[in-house]
Amino acid sequence: MLKESRKLKLEDFGLFEGISETIVTTSQGLSPNAAPMGIIRKHDTTLIRIFKGSKTYKNITTDNFLVANITNDPLAFVRYTFSEVLPEDIQTIYSQEREFPVLKDAQSWVAFECINTKITPYSLVAELRPVMGHVNCCYPKAPNRGLNALIEATIHATRYKMHGEEKYLELINFYEDIINKCGGEREKEALRLLRTYL
Amino acid sequence: MLKESRKLKLEDFGLFEGISETIVTTSQGLSPNAAPMGIIRKHDTTLIRIFKGSKTYKNITTDNFLVANITNDPLAFVRYTFSEVLPEDIQTIYSQEREFPVLKDAQSWVAFECINTKITPYSLVAELRPVMGHVNCCYPKAPNRGLNALIEATIHATRYKMHGEEKYLELINFYEDIINKCGGEREKEALRLLRTYL
Repeated sequence: MLKESRKLKLEDFGLFEGISETIVTTSQGLSPNAAPMGIIRKHDTTLIRIFKGSKTYKNITTDNFLVANITNDPLAFVRYTFSEVLPEDIQTIYSQEREFPVLKDAQSWVAFECINTKITPYSLVAELRPVMGHVNCCYPKAPNRGLNALIEATIHATRYKMHGEEKYLELINFYEDIINKCGGEREKEALRLLRTYL
Repeated sequence: MLKESRKLKLEDFGLFEGISETIVTTSQGLSPNAAPMGIIRKHDTTLIRIFKGSKTYKNITTDNFLVANITNDPLAFVRYTFSEVLPEDIQTIYSQEREFPVLKDAQSWVAFECINTKITPYSLVAELRPVMGHVNCCYPKAPNRGLNALIEATIHATRYKMHGEEKYLELINFYEDIINKCGGEREKEALRLLRTYL
């Protein structure tokens, strides 16, 4: 299912009200980038907020375009937080107007134009207008507290790397117990990878 | 898709390795029951552990049968933790060998026979053998930290009700911030409902 339209229903691609944790792919010329980012939906508005200094920030200010990739893979959240996306993880989509990178293994993705971008001293906030969406595969999945805890631990790991405060390490330890108790092998592998970055 | 077999692939219905958070429906005669429960998958074994004193415990020791319903609905986790399932929430499935209740709004469900049940002083542990599975609907869904936090808050709420310790209220407050920041309207409604039970 590949849909090209200004009236895509974001729910069909996995983006619901509140903040959806996705992997955002962007590019500038030949070099694609992937990073975990929240897509914010509130009433009829879809937004993204990106802090200054990242590649995603640079690409979006240049290109005004991004793709939100939907995945439940815990390893994807850790990998793309701390390391570069590999060329073999990327598929290039050619549409009438442009080409752009998506994650091959995403369950689904939505490509957005960034409009009404507001730059503040520390971040940008852009409205997102969906231009194309695709569902690769779809399967039911029960909530897994280990996956959830892995996402929280990854967020605290970036905060720890940024601010160096001990409290973030304590939070990671707190979530580690949940990952070890409730996660599958993939969540535990993601945790081991996360630990290598700390 | 309604599958009846001893060789169901549990992944097709949303139950992966680790602990899947599901709503377990059971019945004893005419009165169905629904309660959030973890389905534990480790290597080739699927297990459930149920603490003494609940209706689910009583039904399983009598009937040796349960259904794991897969849902992402935050309200379902709060409702079925603290109140009885409503007759209109239930659909009765008639198979060759028996009839059993499932949740109408579940994304999918798997019916299990409980075998090799071990009773300990505080709980039972049963192996689960899948006998039938069904997928109602399937859509991609990006992780939402608000939904995750709501599930955690609900777990701590049951612990608070059981032990009355202040630390559980603090954990609920901690997760409340994440629900308010990242959840959609449905997560926030579930949180309001949760608060009414505390």
